[in-house]
Amino acid sequence: MKHLIDPMDLSVKEIDDILKLSEDIIANRETYSSICRGKKLATLFFEPSTRTRLSFEAAMLELGGSVIGFSSADSSSAAKGESVADTARTIEKYADIIAMRHPKEGSSKVASLHVNIPVINAGDGGHNHPTQTLTDLLTIYEIKHRLHSLTVGFCGDLKFGRTVHSLIKALSRYDNIKIILISPDELKIPSYIREEVLQKNNIPFVETTDLENSIADLDVLYMTRVQRERFFNEADYIRLKDSYILNLQKLNHAKEDLSILHPLPRVNEISTEVDHDPRAKYFEQVEYGKFVRMALMLKLLNLK
Amino acid sequence: MKHLIDPMDLSVKEIDDILKLSEDIIANRETYSSICRGKKLATLFFEPSTRTRLSFEAAMLELGGSVIGFSSADSSSAAKGESVADTARTIEKYADIIAMRHPKEGSSKVASLHVNIPVINAGDGGHNHPTQTLTDLLTIYEIKHRLHSLTVGFCGDLKFGRTVHSLIKALSRYDNIKIILISPDELKIPSYIREEVLQKNNIPFVETTDLENSIADLDVLYMTRVQRERFFNEADYIRLKDSYILNLQKLNHAKEDLSILHPLPRVNEISTEVDHDPRAKYFEQVEYGKFVRMALMLKLLNLK
Amino acid sequence: MKHLIDPMDLSVKEIDDILKLSEDIIANRETYSSICRGKKLATLFFEPSTRTRLSFEAAMLELGGSVIGFSSADSSSAAKGESVADTARTIEKYADIIAMRHPKEGSSKVASLHVNIPVINAGDGGHNHPTQTLTDLLTIYEIKHRLHSLTVGFCGDLKFGRTVHSLIKALSRYDNIKIILISPDELKIPSYIREEVLQKNNIPFVETTDLENSIADLDVLYMTRVQRERFFNEADYIRLKDSYILNLQKLNHAKEDLSILHPLPRVNEISTEVDHDPRAKYFEQVEYGKFVRMALMLKLLNLK
Repeated sequence: MKHLIDPMDLSVKEIDDILKLSEDIIANRETYSSICRGKKLATLFFEPSTRTRLSFEAAMLELGGSVIGFSSADSSSAAKGESVADTARTIEKYADIIAMRHPKEGSSKVASLHVNIPVINAGDGGHNHPTQTLTDLLTIYEIKHRLHSLTVGFCGDLKFGRTVHSLIKALSRYDNIKIILISPDELKIPSYIREEVLQKNNIPFVETTDLENSIADLDVLYMTRVQRERFFNEADYIRLKDSYILNLQKLNHAKEDLSILHPLPRVNEISTEVDHDPRAKYFEQVEYGKFVRMALMLKLLNLK
Repeated sequence: MKHLIDPMDLSVKEIDDILKLSEDIIANRETYSSICRGKKLATLFFEPSTRTRLSFEAAMLELGGSVIGFSSADSSSAAKGESVADTARTIEKYADIIAMRHPKEGSSKVASLHVNIPVINAGDGGHNHPTQTLTDLLTIYEIKHRLHSLTVGFCGDLKFGRTVHSLIKALSRYDNIKIILISPDELKIPSYIREEVLQKNNIPFVETTDLENSIADLDVLYMTRVQRERFFNEADYIRLKDSYILNLQKLNHAKEDLSILHPLPRVNEISTEVDHDPRAKYFEQVEYGKFVRMALMLKLLNLK
Repeated sequence: MKHLIDPMDLSVKEIDDILKLSEDIIANRETYSSICRGKKLATLFFEPSTRTRLSFEAAMLELGGSVIGFSSADSSSAAKGESVADTARTIEKYADIIAMRHPKEGSSKVASLHVNIPVINAGDGGHNHPTQTLTDLLTIYEIKHRLHSLTVGFCGDLKFGRTVHSLIKALSRYDNIKIILISPDELKIPSYIREEVLQKNNIPFVETTDLENSIADLDVLYMTRVQRERFFNEADYIRLKDSYILNLQKLNHAKEDLSILHPLPRVNEISTEVDHDPRAKYFEQVEYGKFVRMALMLKLLNLK
C-alpha cells in the first residue's frame, strides 16, 4: 500500500489493519501525539470541502505533524494552466504526504503516478472518496464490533451517491450481509452495483421506496441527501421528499440498537429532533473519520 | 465562563481576571509558550476579517497550540446548505476551541448551544465583537493603569459602530467615567445607548459635533471610520468628513498623555502624520489584542 | 541585510553566504529542524502564488517555526481600504518575519519602511522576485559547483520575464559568463538589460531566434513560457511557438551536462518527455527554492 486512490485497492486484511490501528489510536491518544513530528501533510483541495480538509488537518496535527496547502483552485497554480502532475511533483518537494481533492475523476491517480510520496484521494468528482468509506467502516466496526452479519439500509439518493456505492462494495466482501435499498424510483441504485456487486457476490438485497416499512430490520441505516435538482419536476420532488426524511416517528419502528449514519453535510433529510436519539451516530462518525485518517496516514508513511 | 458571545456576559471580576492574566502573559512570555501544546483552535470565519483571524491564530501559536479553519464562507460547507449548528458539531470533533465570525447576528450563540467546547464570538454582523472590547479595555488599562476616573471621547460613526457601543457599555460599569460623543448629527449614538446605558448608570456625557473643541479634556480618544455610504448625499459627506479626521493640528489642544485608539482598519480618519506622535496607541492596541485573546483562550480552556 | 526587496540589494558576498548556508542546511537537515521554534512567518499574498507561498511555508516549518497568513486579497483587510503600510504594521505584532506578494510594484518596499521585522519581497508585480533569483543561483551552484565560467541560455519571453532579467543581472557580477538570448523578435530582451547590464559589464552575449542551433554551447538553459497574449496576432503565435518548445529532439544537440531550469509553472514550453532526461533540473530547482528560503530567513532573523 503506497497510495490510496480507490477504496477497493485495499484488501480486507489491509482494511482490518487500518481499523485495528484506529482503535489503538483512540485508546492511546498520547502515544501517537508526536509520532509525525517533522512530517508535513499537503492538503491540495482543487474544490472546497471543509469537512474533509479539516478532518485531514486535525488528524495530522494530532499526530504531531504540520500542514500546508490550499482550499480552492483559485489560490492554486492550476489557474495558470499547470497540470496536476506538475503540481504534485512540486508539492513532493515540500511535503511528506498529499491529500488531494479534485473535481475531475482520476486526478489523484494521475498525481500518484508522478510522485514518490503517498497520495490519498480525498474525493475525485463523482468517482471515489475512499477515506469516507474507511470512516463508515470504522464507525460500524466501533459500534457493532463486527463488519459481518449486518442488515444495512441505504436511504435517499442511491443513484448518484458515491459514498453509498463505495460502502456497498466494501461491505460486499464480508459474510452474511443483507442490503436494503430505499429510494424513489428516480434515484435507484445503478444496475452495475446491482449486478456486478450484489448479485455477483450473492448478497441478499431488497429494493423499496418505503423507508417507514423497511426500518424495523435494520442494524445500520445510512442516510443520504435527496437533492431537489435530481428530479425532473418540482411536483415529484415535493411529493417524494418527506418520505425520505428521517424523524422520530419513523424511528418508532426501528431496533433499539440501530445505528444511523450520514456522510454529512445534511440539509433536512434527518430531522434535528433525531440528533438527541442515542441511535444517531453521525456526529460520532465525524470523529471516527479523523481517527481513521490518522491510522491511514501512519500506514502510508510506514510509521506503523 | 464557558463561551464568550457578548462582552456583557463577563462580570467586572471576570474582565479583571482576564486583564491581569494578559499582564502576566506580557511579562512572562516564555512561561506560556507551550501551555496549549496539543490544543487546536478552529477559526471559522464565514466572512473575511484578516486582522481578527490572524490575531487569534498568532495568539494560539504563541501559546504552543495549533490552528485549523477557513477564512471565508466560499470554502466552507455552508455553501452546501449546512446549518451553523451542524458545522459547529463537526468542528467540535476536530478542535478544542472555536473562534467564529459570521455575518448573521446570533450565529456564535447558536453554535455555542450545540457544542461542549468553548465558542468565542469573533464578530456576528453588527451585533457583538467581544474580543475587540477586551482589546480596548486592556489597551486603556495597560497605558492608564486604571479603567475608572477617565474622560473618554468617541469620534466618528457612533450610530453603526458596534465597537463603540460595546466599549461604552463596558466602561459604564467603572467609577467616575465621563463620555464625550463626537459625531455628525447623522451618526449620533443610538438612543438606547444614551438612555439604557449612560443615563441609567448616571454617566455624565456630552454630545457634540466638534472634535477640535472637545479634545482638550480627553484621557482617551477612540476614533472610528466615517463611511461615505452612511450619508444621504455626497455633499454632506464632503462637507463633514474633514471635521472628523484627526491630524497633528487638532492634537495641539490635547493633553500630553492622551491615548488615541482605533479598532482598525483605518482609511483616512487618522492622518498618517499622527502615527509618529507618542499619543498614537492604535498599533500597540493591535498587540494588546493578541495578548488578551491569549488570556481569554487560557481561561475558557481552563488552563488558568 | 535587514529586508530582501530587490535581488541586487545583496552583495556577491551576501549571496555567497546564503548559498553556503543553504548547502549546510541540505547536508544537516536535523540540525536546523527546530532552530526557528517559537518564530512565526506571515505569508501576505495579495495575489495567489501557490508555489511560492507553499515554498516559504514549508521552509519555515522545516526550521521548526509556524505560519500565519492569507493567500489572496479577498480575505485581507485590503478589501476594506487598508494601506499596505498599515497591514504590515499590524502583522508586525503577530509575526517575526513577513513574505509579501503584491500585484503592485514597490509594495514590499513600502511595507519594509514601516516595520521593524524583516520583509521579504515574494514578488511585486512585474518588478522583482528575489527569492526566485536566489533559487536559480543555488540550483546552478549546486549542480555546476560554480557561478562563474558558464554559458547560459535564456529562451522564450525575454521581454516580460522578470525572472530572466533578475538572473542576468545577478550573473553579470561573476567572471567569464556568456549569455545566449533566444526569443522571437517580439519578445527580445529590453534594451536597458542589453545596455545597462550586459554591455556595461562587458558580458559577451548573442541574440538569436533559433533555439535548436544555439543549444550546443550551453551549460545552463533557462526556459520560460511564451504566452499567447504577448503576440499581436494568433498567426504569429502559432507560427512561432513550436520553435520555443523544448523536446528530446532539440536536446540531441546539447551537452551531456547541460542543466535545464524553469521557474515554473510550465504550460507546454518543455515537453513532458524531457522530464525523464537527466538534464531536466526544474523539479530539483523547486526543492532548492525551499532550501534557499530557509537560509534567507535564518540570515534575516539573525539566527545564522
